[in-house]
Amino acid sequence: MSKITKNIAESVVVKRDKNTYKGRFGRVLIIGGNENMGGAVIMNAQAAVYSGAGLVTVATHPDNKAPLHARLPEVMVTNYREQLAEQVAKAEVILVGSGLGTAAEAQHILKETIEATSPDQLLILDGSALTMFSGSGWTLPAVPTVLTPHQMEWQRLSGVEIAEQRDQEKNQKALERLSSSAILVLKSEATQVYWNHDCFELTVGGPYQATGGMGDTLAGMIAGFTAQFKPHGSAVLAAVYAHSAIAEELSQQAYVTLPSEIAKRIPAFMKKLADHSS
Amino acid sequence: MSKITKNIAESVVVKRDKNTYKGRFGRVLIIGGNENMGGAVIMNAQAAVYSGAGLVTVATHPDNKAPLHARLPEVMVTNYREQLAEQVAKAEVILVGSGLGTAAEAQHILKETIEATSPDQLLILDGSALTMFSGSGWTLPAVPTVLTPHQMEWQRLSGVEIAEQRDQEKNQKALERLSSSAILVLKSEATQVYWNHDCFELTVGGPYQATGGMGDTLAGMIAGFTAQFKPHGSAVLAAVYAHSAIAEELSQQAYVTLPSEIAKRIPAFMKKLADHSS
Amino acid sequence: MSKITKNIAESVVVKRDKNTYKGRFGRVLIIGGNENMGGAVIMNAQAAVYSGAGLVTVATHPDNKAPLHARLPEVMVTNYREQLAEQVAKAEVILVGSGLGTAAEAQHILKETIEATSPDQLLILDGSALTMFSGSGWTLPAVPTVLTPHQMEWQRLSGVEIAEQRDQEKNQKALERLSSSAILVLKSEATQVYWNHDCFELTVGGPYQATGGMGDTLAGMIAGFTAQFKPHGSAVLAAVYAHSAIAEELSQQAYVTLPSEIAKRIPAFMKKLADHSS
Amino acid sequence: MSKITKNIAESVVVKRDKNTYKGRFGRVLIIGGNENMGGAVIMNAQAAVYSGAGLVTVATHPDNKAPLHARLPEVMVTNYREQLAEQVAKAEVILVGSGLGTAAEAQHILKETIEATSPDQLLILDGSALTMFSGSGWTLPAVPTVLTPHQMEWQRLSGVEIAEQRDQEKNQKALERLSSSAILVLKSEATQVYWNHDCFELTVGGPYQATGGMGDTLAGMIAGFTAQFKPHGSAVLAAVYAHSAIAEELSQQAYVTLPSEIAKRIPAFMKKLADHSS
Repeated sequence: MSKITKNIAESVVVKRDKNTYKGRFGRVLIIGGNENMGGAVIMNAQAAVYSGAGLVTVATHPDNKAPLHARLPEVMVTNYREQLAEQVAKAEVILVGSGLGTAAEAQHILKETIEATSPDQLLILDGSALTMFSGSGWTLPAVPTVLTPHQMEWQRLSGVEIAEQRDQEKNQKALERLSSSAILVLKSEATQVYWNHDCFELTVGGPYQATGGMGDTLAGMIAGFTAQFKPHGSAVLAAVYAHSAIAEELSQQAYVTLPSEIAKRIPAFMKKLADHSS
Repeated sequence: MSKITKNIAESVVVKRDKNTYKGRFGRVLIIGGNENMGGAVIMNAQAAVYSGAGLVTVATHPDNKAPLHARLPEVMVTNYREQLAEQVAKAEVILVGSGLGTAAEAQHILKETIEATSPDQLLILDGSALTMFSGSGWTLPAVPTVLTPHQMEWQRLSGVEIAEQRDQEKNQKALERLSSSAILVLKSEATQVYWNHDCFELTVGGPYQATGGMGDTLAGMIAGFTAQFKPHGSAVLAAVYAHSAIAEELSQQAYVTLPSEIAKRIPAFMKKLADHSS
Repeated sequence: MSKITKNIAESVVVKRDKNTYKGRFGRVLIIGGNENMGGAVIMNAQAAVYSGAGLVTVATHPDNKAPLHARLPEVMVTNYREQLAEQVAKAEVILVGSGLGTAAEAQHILKETIEATSPDQLLILDGSALTMFSGSGWTLPAVPTVLTPHQMEWQRLSGVEIAEQRDQEKNQKALERLSSSAILVLKSEATQVYWNHDCFELTVGGPYQATGGMGDTLAGMIAGFTAQFKPHGSAVLAAVYAHSAIAEELSQQAYVTLPSEIAKRIPAFMKKLADHSS
Repeated sequence: MSKITKNIAESVVVKRDKNTYKGRFGRVLIIGGNENMGGAVIMNAQAAVYSGAGLVTVATHPDNKAPLHARLPEVMVTNYREQLAEQVAKAEVILVGSGLGTAAEAQHILKETIEATSPDQLLILDGSALTMFSGSGWTLPAVPTVLTPHQMEWQRLSGVEIAEQRDQEKNQKALERLSSSAILVLKSEATQVYWNHDCFELTVGGPYQATGGMGDTLAGMIAGFTAQFKPHGSAVLAAVYAHSAIAEELSQQAYVTLPSEIAKRIPAFMKKLADHSS
């Protein structure tokens, strides 16, 4: 087992080339946020934008457009009931599931999304998308994929009981049954990332992160980082590290670290990483 | 009579266990905010989230969803006309009444809420809920309860005239007539908390807090603190202390201390309390 | 002619009594903001709340409710087409006209407002309300009144040409023709206040204030100050002074001083005034 | 070829006259923001207001009003489907195209806008407006005009391939074919401004600006600066300089510089320029 270190993050978040343009930093599509859980995609999107993704579009329930734009004018917003496949086709990274819920409409949206992806894209499955997958009989598409379950979602998805999830071999084998290539971010008080036949464990962060929306911000950061940095696995490790390292910094002055406060600090934290990159 | 001291607050707001998850910090349901007073639940919710409640859901008039999410993506929002009993059943702490109004619909919502509560939950009655209770002939349910009236609301609820509310014995007896176990937060320029056959008096705070919405922020803090800390009475004392102590700090630089400014300072204040907890 | 000095402001903005409650700091009703100019009442309301008014209600076009609450949960919001007279009856200070427009509906709302006022209230007429008054044939009601025209609005209302508005006697006589007791705030690059048969001239402020919405913030401050301090004329002088003195402070670091930035600084500025009050 | 220097910006952003009023700082009309891209006009408007434009009105899809006012109460908002020609007639600077899209309705709005302009106004064409112009067969109106294409938009508009856009003579000739007097802001990693038969190159800024919405903020600054400073070409140079110089300052602490963060810094940056102006 490896540790997720600052060194890894510094090797990923490198200085940008001088001659560049936003198209090189990726097109991210975020799909989620039903009538009740629109805050989830707001946190997704804020994290992706503040991570430096080139262009971010959010496909969501129409009720969520106004609060999204009130907080984040930098994104485009579409109705997730309309032309979803066309939106998916234009993206390089697709994050689906945060606040999506599991109703019939959500199932339809998830199915349509997965069917529209192609192997040159990256698919991130979060929250409700993982729940809907569990026991659906569906198989993961032949597309590079990141899964971001918390412990209960992983139990439902993999069959590995929470009590046994410290057993890396069991998680690894369960992951291989789901997909030959998916990256797993197994969120717990000691988050593990499974990638490239290795398991990486997070050693920063703490209980100040135990609050609603924390995972939505992490998912948005993973989308933003994978849109910019390659290979995907390294980008995921860097995002997971940065998310909790920022929270740890904030916790010096805060009993609880709000997800939206973490997002605001991303550009400053990435700047420090880039200053130390070789 | 006892004082509500910093020591009490420090004994309540302890460092979080390292190995934890958001489920341990409580599910809070906030019910309130009619067509005109949606700001009340925004202040409730901001205070609950910034106090560190694990998960916060707001059941409110649909018009209030967009501004709530624009300010606070960390919460879930539902329509208080739909599936209210199901929402109540999922919560551990239920705060009802801020900005709810007293119209027929509000009465129906309050009744449905109270009927859906059970003895393993905590019910906080604030604002309009207290007004509707007064003279309704209803009795408090056999559920742990916190009442947060200001002086006029207490007069209506208990029959104790404002001029006589400095008489602790009268308040105590009136409270016992209402409920054998309810905790009373009697808000005035010297707020009193009745709990466990004792009366605790607040000695921080001041006239810079005399502005609209102050009580909504306090009610949200009580919800957030009781969701995390036990026993309920101690948590209430700590919330009442922290609310006014933050205002007192802000008043060094402010003629009036806005409720939403107080909310933002909660995580930093709780961090200081936890650093001094034993 | 007198100057509007810091001393006057310090004599008005006194320390609050220790034993008090929000009811003592006034009920303000703000009426304005049509379908296109809702920002005006947002600025009114932010200024009134940050000035320390006890309770602020905004009666406005329904489209303006969501952005108002997104910025300012401390206020209540009603539809200005419904039960306006009841709202007016409950207020102590009524500010009408900012962003109201001059369409038939606006005229109806202004008329209904004025007819519902009574001599124990204060009526502040701003923006569109002044324009509609001009040439309407209406007379000011027998209610304490503050008028806040800029130069063109004053010309239309009084018949005094802009070029002649440096002539205090002309302004004074024109004001007396309109009302025996109204206070006039004549806004220009050297704002004048006519009150109690005297003319007071502002000597702080500058061209960094020449931006849209500046008058809406001033009107809101006048509402907030008159709700708390007596006599009305002194409160108006203090509000006019504080508004421009805050802008002058901000202008040390800003080419243009945004109205919403000025509002945020009100509590800190008033605190400094109160510290120097005798 | 000339450089766009700080000296130019300092010569443009001069101290304001003491005796002035907002009417002297221009009426700006911003037209854009369809159902999905409302964020673009929010960024336009924030930049124009923070640059010090006297009065800013946004004509946009009605869905965008609430988030606009939630972020920026200083603007007026109208529906771009209603009375657009009347709005255009009242403005001095018209910025059209950011987030407008290219659907039939957008084409109609652009056409109506251009037909309503007159030679005493300034027309700024951005984003979708440039795309719709390309290959439309339309000719630019006989009105002072600023074009703000990025490289692909310029290729479509002028026929000059991206690979050849370092050739100033080609750009210059292509511009002259489009208009005898238009100012061209050709955005790339080394932005060029063509004005008055000269080409000015930007030497500040960097890859931290490669993020969605950056161009919308620049367009809003150009609108704000041209509304206040003359001649138009100098104002454009100063806006282009200030936009990237602010980003460069922010990049000392940020991996990516968000458009809305740049906007907030405009008043402080302009103040520094004015302090050094002669």
